[in-house]
Amino acid sequence: MAAQKPGLARGTRDFGPVQMSRRNYLFGIIRTVFEKFGFQPLETPAIENLATLTGKYGEEGDQLLFKILNSGDFMKNASDANLSERNSKSITPEISEKGLRYDLTVPFARYVVMNQHLHNFPFKRYQIQPVWRADRPQKGRYREFFQCDADVVGTNSLLCEAEIVLMIREVFEKLGLADYSIKLNNRKILSGIAELMGAPGKEGPLCVAIDKLDKIGEEKVFEELKERGFGDDVAKKLQPFLQLTGSNAAIIADLEKLLARSDVGMVGVAELKEVMAMVEGFGVKVDQLAIDPTLARGLSYYTGCIFEVKPTSVQMGSICGGGRYDDLTGMFGLPNVSGVGISFGIDRIYDVLDELNLFPAESLRTSKVLIANFDPASAMKALAVLGKLREGGIAAELYPESAKLKKQFTYAESKGIPFLLMAGESEFASGEFGLKNLQSGEQKTFTIEQIISELR
Amino acid sequence: MAAQKPGLARGTRDFGPVQMSRRNYLFGIIRTVFEKFGFQPLETPAIENLATLTGKYGEEGDQLLFKILNSGDFMKNASDANLSERNSKSITPEISEKGLRYDLTVPFARYVVMNQHLHNFPFKRYQIQPVWRADRPQKGRYREFFQCDADVVGTNSLLCEAEIVLMIREVFEKLGLADYSIKLNNRKILSGIAELMGAPGKEGPLCVAIDKLDKIGEEKVFEELKERGFGDDVAKKLQPFLQLTGSNAAIIADLEKLLARSDVGMVGVAELKEVMAMVEGFGVKVDQLAIDPTLARGLSYYTGCIFEVKPTSVQMGSICGGGRYDDLTGMFGLPNVSGVGISFGIDRIYDVLDELNLFPAESLRTSKVLIANFDPASAMKALAVLGKLREGGIAAELYPESAKLKKQFTYAESKGIPFLLMAGESEFASGEFGLKNLQSGEQKTFTIEQIISELR
Repeated sequence: MAAQKPGLARGTRDFGPVQMSRRNYLFGIIRTVFEKFGFQPLETPAIENLATLTGKYGEEGDQLLFKILNSGDFMKNASDANLSERNSKSITPEISEKGLRYDLTVPFARYVVMNQHLHNFPFKRYQIQPVWRADRPQKGRYREFFQCDADVVGTNSLLCEAEIVLMIREVFEKLGLADYSIKLNNRKILSGIAELMGAPGKEGPLCVAIDKLDKIGEEKVFEELKERGFGDDVAKKLQPFLQLTGSNAAIIADLEKLLARSDVGMVGVAELKEVMAMVEGFGVKVDQLAIDPTLARGLSYYTGCIFEVKPTSVQMGSICGGGRYDDLTGMFGLPNVSGVGISFGIDRIYDVLDELNLFPAESLRTSKVLIANFDPASAMKALAVLGKLREGGIAAELYPESAKLKKQFTYAESKGIPFLLMAGESEFASGEFGLKNLQSGEQKTFTIEQIISELR
Repeated sequence: MAAQKPGLARGTRDFGPVQMSRRNYLFGIIRTVFEKFGFQPLETPAIENLATLTGKYGEEGDQLLFKILNSGDFMKNASDANLSERNSKSITPEISEKGLRYDLTVPFARYVVMNQHLHNFPFKRYQIQPVWRADRPQKGRYREFFQCDADVVGTNSLLCEAEIVLMIREVFEKLGLADYSIKLNNRKILSGIAELMGAPGKEGPLCVAIDKLDKIGEEKVFEELKERGFGDDVAKKLQPFLQLTGSNAAIIADLEKLLARSDVGMVGVAELKEVMAMVEGFGVKVDQLAIDPTLARGLSYYTGCIFEVKPTSVQMGSICGGGRYDDLTGMFGLPNVSGVGISFGIDRIYDVLDELNLFPAESLRTSKVLIANFDPASAMKALAVLGKLREGGIAAELYPESAKLKKQFTYAESKGIPFLLMAGESEFASGEFGLKNLQSGEQKTFTIEQIISELR
């Protein structure tokens, strides 16, 4: 076979040692926080039956599903009509029964329904896995990317909402990121606003329009709402909500006045108040938390509190978001299971930490020390030293060949190994070994025992 | 949409909290050992171009690749002839350009070739990721399963082989598994045996036949070799190798006599001697290590040392295997890169640990304590306690509703939470809280500070 020039599939990435180390550092912190809050790990398969996936993500989503060709003689099931018409769309279900996971939410719902007798509600799970979408790749948008979700299902308690705020706070604190905002709103407030605008039940189009405030401005949002039948006094009725400022307590007080005539709106305000009281009850101050009645979030399935996190010192969209939904598992026949979830945008958080230089140098998974290989006889003796270092819990390696020292240096540097240990004939004769700090260039002489305690 | 009964795609699995906890424990130990030996993490995408995968796993492998249907109007590229003949095989490349990762080795080779200027050889990487094969599912064989590989490429040094032995020893020691054997052989010894049998270059068929010794016995192996042109005195020439017993040193001494007339065979023996000397040089005794000249390993690409690990107290096939290969990256245009790798069979190791009850109870990722929720007012006060527990590094949760205590008990038990903290009105009045050990049933009274130090 002739050698071929290898390449990656479009929209996919390799993660080499540096990226993997940083990703594992990031995942590790999120995982630790999730587990501290009682969330347990779950993983579902990459391959799902198309029957599970299709129809869950809208028509656009169905088209973006990666579909797997049936094994064996798949063409035998294709219908004559579809073949002769070359009808890609209608032939697909005849030759493909499986697809790749598109998000973590639908497989989670499937898992909950299939394993409802295994878990006592509330069920708190987290899931960190890749998903695949046949989107057009562009800067920052990949066809394979990781999602990182935590959800509680089976309880209406607003404690879950308060804990989501605390988890967000703890994750970003541990990551060293202080400049961010957590916006909090409640879909019921948006329902109340729609009601007051004379468009009860139209919170859907209201959310879609309000979601564009940052992009197109107030005037255009008002116009869009007028077109969608929100009446001619849109500006007058909506503006008071857009102009709310001050502390969270002040905003809540204003909302109570503005929404006094909407039952659903007042429930929304009451829920926000309770979440804020619970966050306070934990005894921590979350300065980043701000109630924002204009936060809408695109997804239609949210029914209660909604969250969105954005960095404030870096130009970047939302890095974390979520909310409460009332009927996640209904699509698989288990109705009335309320849940609330949060999703961390791993790729964006990675970019923010990278831009702000917040990845600690120690996150790099590499050896702490490279033993230089001077000659075969010394290398043989160095094995016992290497064994002792590792026994002492120190990641270490011996250069595998008696190559030029320059080459061994370069190896250590390219791999980010911070120390080089000199272990030649004279060192073994004296029992004292040179330890060179490759960053400072400084070299000191120690016994092996001293080196172990030095490096540990 | 009518609710549907959800199911898993055939041959795939969900991993719930208990399995995930154990798998993460297992992966964590292997990862720690790999990193201690200087291996760095790598991940490649699940989706690869079929051009990268096809032709690398033999004809059977090509058929077992999961192929992804092209997006959009894929039928427009199908040829009339293939359509009218319903020729599944020849139409596949016209409607599918991508496939799912079949193993970790080929993507690793692709990565090395594409990133050769990024890494100074030797490059030591480990990779723990799922792979997919459209095999017929059966007990213990899945269509999606994890592989767990560590490889060094770019050096011929036998230090790598010795370190593989040490890594195997350390992984199983940390897992608490003592009853296993590491078999070690060298393909050059098998080449030497073929040479002495008058069939030089025929080590391939020799390996295939010898690989069946356990299953079909000596006589049938001899017959197969006769049929394959190894001459009529197969038994006489092969038997001495099959009957070798005694210490590793004794076997090496016997091999030196038996293979004295084969240059390649003697190189193989010399390599085994050097690996054994290096393992000893590390100053650890690996009692499980046994030289076995009948170890063949199926895969054709091995050229030097080969390894195989089997548990000895459980009926189970190989749980770990690997070896040296001379030309991994040649298929992608980078020749003469020698490497050596090891692969841990995660699913089988999981089953062995499960059968021998070797998963520690602490591996379960769950809260250490559940605070019972007696009434809304006490629950509000309990938030501060919950915050303090978590600040103390203790995974903890408050039952989200003021449900019956029995229900809260059941929740804690089903989730494996070991302690229940009583925090009702009287407890907050006295400042002393009951802590119930759910396994022993014992309950003691403590202040919060005492509880934190007790649970930590």
